Amino acid sequence: MTEPSPYWLRDNCPCGECRDPRNGQKLFQIADLPDDLTLAAQCELDGNLEVLWSDGHRSRYPLAWLHEEPEGDGRTEEGKRLWAAADFARGLPEADWAAYLADPAERAAVLAAVRRSGFAVLRGVPAVERQVLAVAESFGYVRVTNYGELFDVRVEPDPNNLAFTSAAIAPHTDNPYRDPVPTLQLLHCLENSATGGDSGLVDGFRAAAILREEAPEAFALLTRTPVPFVFRDRRTELRAERPLIDVDGLGRIREVRFNNRSFGTLRGEGRDAFYAAYRRFAAITLRPELQLTFRLDPGDCLVFDNTRLLHARTAFEQDGRRHLQGCYADLDALGSTLAVLHRGTAALDELAELFAGEGAGEYLGEEVTMAEHMLQAAAAAERAGAAPHLVAAALLHDLGHLVDEHGREAVSGRDLMRGQDNRHSDTGAARLAQWFGPEVTEPVRLHVAAKRYLCAVEPGYREKLSEASEYTLTVQGGPMSERQAAEFAELPGAADAVAVRRWDEQAKTAGAEVPGFEHYRPLLAALMR
Amino acid sequence: MTEPSPYWLRDNCPCGECRDPRNGQKLFQIADLPDDLTLAAQCELDGNLEVLWSDGHRSRYPLAWLHEEPEGDGRTEEGKRLWAAADFARGLPEADWAAYLADPAERAAVLAAVRRSGFAVLRGVPAVERQVLAVAESFGYVRVTNYGELFDVRVEPDPNNLAFTSAAIAPHTDNPYRDPVPTLQLLHCLENSATGGDSGLVDGFRAAAILREEAPEAFALLTRTPVPFVFRDRRTELRAERPLIDVDGLGRIREVRFNNRSFGTLRGEGRDAFYAAYRRFAAITLRPELQLTFRLDPGDCLVFDNTRLLHARTAFEQDGRRHLQGCYADLDALGSTLAVLHRGTAALDELAELFAGEGAGEYLGEEVTMAEHMLQAAAAAERAGAAPHLVAAALLHDLGHLVDEHGREAVSGRDLMRGQDNRHSDTGAARLAQWFGPEVTEPVRLHVAAKRYLCAVEPGYREKLSEASEYTLTVQGGPMSERQAAEFAELPGAADAVAVRRWDEQAKTAGAEVPGFEHYRPLLAALMR
Repeated sequence: MTEPSPYWLRDNCPCGECRDPRNGQKLFQIADLPDDLTLAAQCELDGNLEVLWSDGHRSRYPLAWLHEEPEGDGRTEEGKRLWAAADFARGLPEADWAAYLADPAERAAVLAAVRRSGFAVLRGVPAVERQVLAVAESFGYVRVTNYGELFDVRVEPDPNNLAFTSAAIAPHTDNPYRDPVPTLQLLHCLENSATGGDSGLVDGFRAAAILREEAPEAFALLTRTPVPFVFRDRRTELRAERPLIDVDGLGRIREVRFNNRSFGTLRGEGRDAFYAAYRRFAAITLRPELQLTFRLDPGDCLVFDNTRLLHARTAFEQDGRRHLQGCYADLDALGSTLAVLHRGTAALDELAELFAGEGAGEYLGEEVTMAEHMLQAAAAAERAGAAPHLVAAALLHDLGHLVDEHGREAVSGRDLMRGQDNRHSDTGAARLAQWFGPEVTEPVRLHVAAKRYLCAVEPGYREKLSEASEYTLTVQGGPMSERQAAEFAELPGAADAVAVRRWDEQAKTAGAEVPGFEHYRPLLAALMR
Repeated sequence: MTEPSPYWLRDNCPCGECRDPRNGQKLFQIADLPDDLTLAAQCELDGNLEVLWSDGHRSRYPLAWLHEEPEGDGRTEEGKRLWAAADFARGLPEADWAAYLADPAERAAVLAAVRRSGFAVLRGVPAVERQVLAVAESFGYVRVTNYGELFDVRVEPDPNNLAFTSAAIAPHTDNPYRDPVPTLQLLHCLENSATGGDSGLVDGFRAAAILREEAPEAFALLTRTPVPFVFRDRRTELRAERPLIDVDGLGRIREVRFNNRSFGTLRGEGRDAFYAAYRRFAAITLRPELQLTFRLDPGDCLVFDNTRLLHARTAFEQDGRRHLQGCYADLDALGSTLAVLHRGTAALDELAELFAGEGAGEYLGEEVTMAEHMLQAAAAAERAGAAPHLVAAALLHDLGHLVDEHGREAVSGRDLMRGQDNRHSDTGAARLAQWFGPEVTEPVRLHVAAKRYLCAVEPGYREKLSEASEYTLTVQGGPMSERQAAEFAELPGAADAVAVRRWDEQAKTAGAEVPGFEHYRPLLAALMR
């Protein structure tokens, strides 16, 4: 390994003194670090790099972390799919609104398409006014502008913008005169019975990449010339000076602004060269192979990256009505929502691994493994027609036997059998609270209490307990007193916990055939927040 | 003059075929222009460059326009005042909230300070919750984030951010992990009785300029290294890769991001050099001469440019309460509001010039000039204790004698005396509608009708008219019929128009001493929209 850069390494120290364990924010300033900081000693141990610093601080870094790939912010051309129209010959990236709402995997796929291809179409979005705001709020925040929270795209009697006429509109990005520019645009079709008025998209990153390939100097000129964009009406006067193509410090295309309508008066030297480059870029954006054309029908909502895609509209006849509602939002929140959805996928993967791994272990002297026991409980709940959150609670009720609240391997269930309560209902509920709301975690947290409750109030219940369960009852505190039982019954989750408890008791049959963990993935995903 | 660049010149053609006269948006695409476009003929005529193009189009450009200075978007270091703390020894840029609301000049001064110095303090903002949103909405739009519409800065039991503790916070910009970053931040103090908890600001553009001066290579490195900023909590995972110092294509400093708390893990080559530059920049931001420290008291609202200023907080004791509410907004809307306010100033300058120029002309055979007449009418309204909008209407009621609705010199009032109605009440009202609401324009529009009305309904009124007014009455249609008078009396602005009319009649005294136009500027400014 090459010698790690000392300030870089120290700045990344993961210890609790250097970082807030809750959010990973650093608790020191870069200037707080001493001058002449060096590694006084270092060694590799147990897969970690252990460092003693010249100022006495100690750090420990997982070796794997040292060589991780950078994640990036997903905003440059890197990792995107730069496209031509033919790439969508088999269909657009799209999803049904109901599926999008119900299924986090579908939601993640739509948001990932916006990041990767720059757009997606949601179908079957209720064609009612203001619904476009609900679409934006499903993954982010509406950006309010001088056009309001939303804008209506339809023919207006005294339009302050070409968008509000029936004329054709050439490919462009919106609001280049704004900085920050709205990074996302949504267009929701309410009516489209006019002849014409089709929608078009062009991948501006692809067009810019072609320009870079064919005319590198023209590309470079467009990246370094600030262009004045202007919009004026009676109540507004917006100006932004930004390049047509913005690249980051590593030269990667990051943003395209393209809109002759609001292109102001460029001043300074080199106007001939600039205009030649500008016209060359414009000609590329108009190449037929880059024009993706499709029709928005009522209920369709197009979501697209306004820092990348140029959008267009064909002219339409006034023989029918055309009415879209649009709004702006931002890519950063969309990226955050997608990352959190991916955490959900990661969480489900983690649960699946637990069922396959630790879950294969012995279940407290019963004839089934822990995984079999939990799967049988879930199957019982499902057979009983229970609500999804109860099926999930039944499936996950003994998670605390497998992991503690931080996801580390739990103190073994055998401890319970050795007379020590491992408080598995609490730790399981705490772990699940990372991903699920109280409708799932409360029945899990209370499922041991529910046993003690049922033993107290239901004649004959205790007699039906398995031998192991009867044993652990004592460790767990025995049947509730009358007062304890009355208090328990008052708890909001009590009834759900009792229901889970009954499926728990039915789930100890050796060799029973029940669905595996994967069967429950969609149900769990829909419950995750 | 050097030969103008053909495509540049043509792209700026101001004719009605090339630009929408309502908003100045261009009606053609840059690729619509023919290849090999040339100026077939050109000549200078009457202060214009007249051009015949090779495709037959004709354009006319004011010569002065050809050499105008670029306006810029006010976002780079250019035209800003880069400051050190001592520059504010005589006080911060500040204003009283009531004055800010009442006086557009005060409002413009505050917004201009935010553009120029990066901040301003509003004093006396009601110390009630959510008021900070009203401050933001006074010039722009609130940017909603995962923190909500607004955030509370106070000690919280389980903080997800260092801001919500009592610890000192070193100078930083907010939300560097967001892209677009919120370009403005507002902090409104509701309570501050704790010991400590003072606010600090550092001009990040100044710090960056010092780095450029002292260590140009370090500066260059920071402008071209994308830094991964990250924020994660249970529901959020935001990432942005942006440089610490962003410059535009001309090398002008445009944005600073500085926040070690959320500075993620930099990967790639050159980490030692980067960290050396980063630490050098950090050390500059901490120089005592750059630290501006002041205390926010209840009712103070700090508005600052989050792309430029670093803000800080000293630690505080828990011996009192400290509670700020903050929100984010954006600089582009602030700039737009400022530009529109400047239009108001320009409009008042235009009116002042009319009073001094055309207004000095003869008033329809009376013994006073038109300006004297209107100033006397306004003075009469003011003496009568009339509401500001009526004083304004009285002052401006005959504007249509001076200019037409487009601000061009009006058809002379003498036409009226020659028996042609110049419809001055309509044109005056139309011109005023550029700047004022109907509460001002309606009494102006109806003040001639009000004369015809009063002659019809008020015994003895007609006899009191001046000779000239009696003459024009005929041209204007004579007294109203009974039915016309009844209809007039129903109009919403009728009573106001009658009031203005009476002051109009009283305002024909040669040599009367009354306040000049400048006396009415604040009143007019407050009425402008």
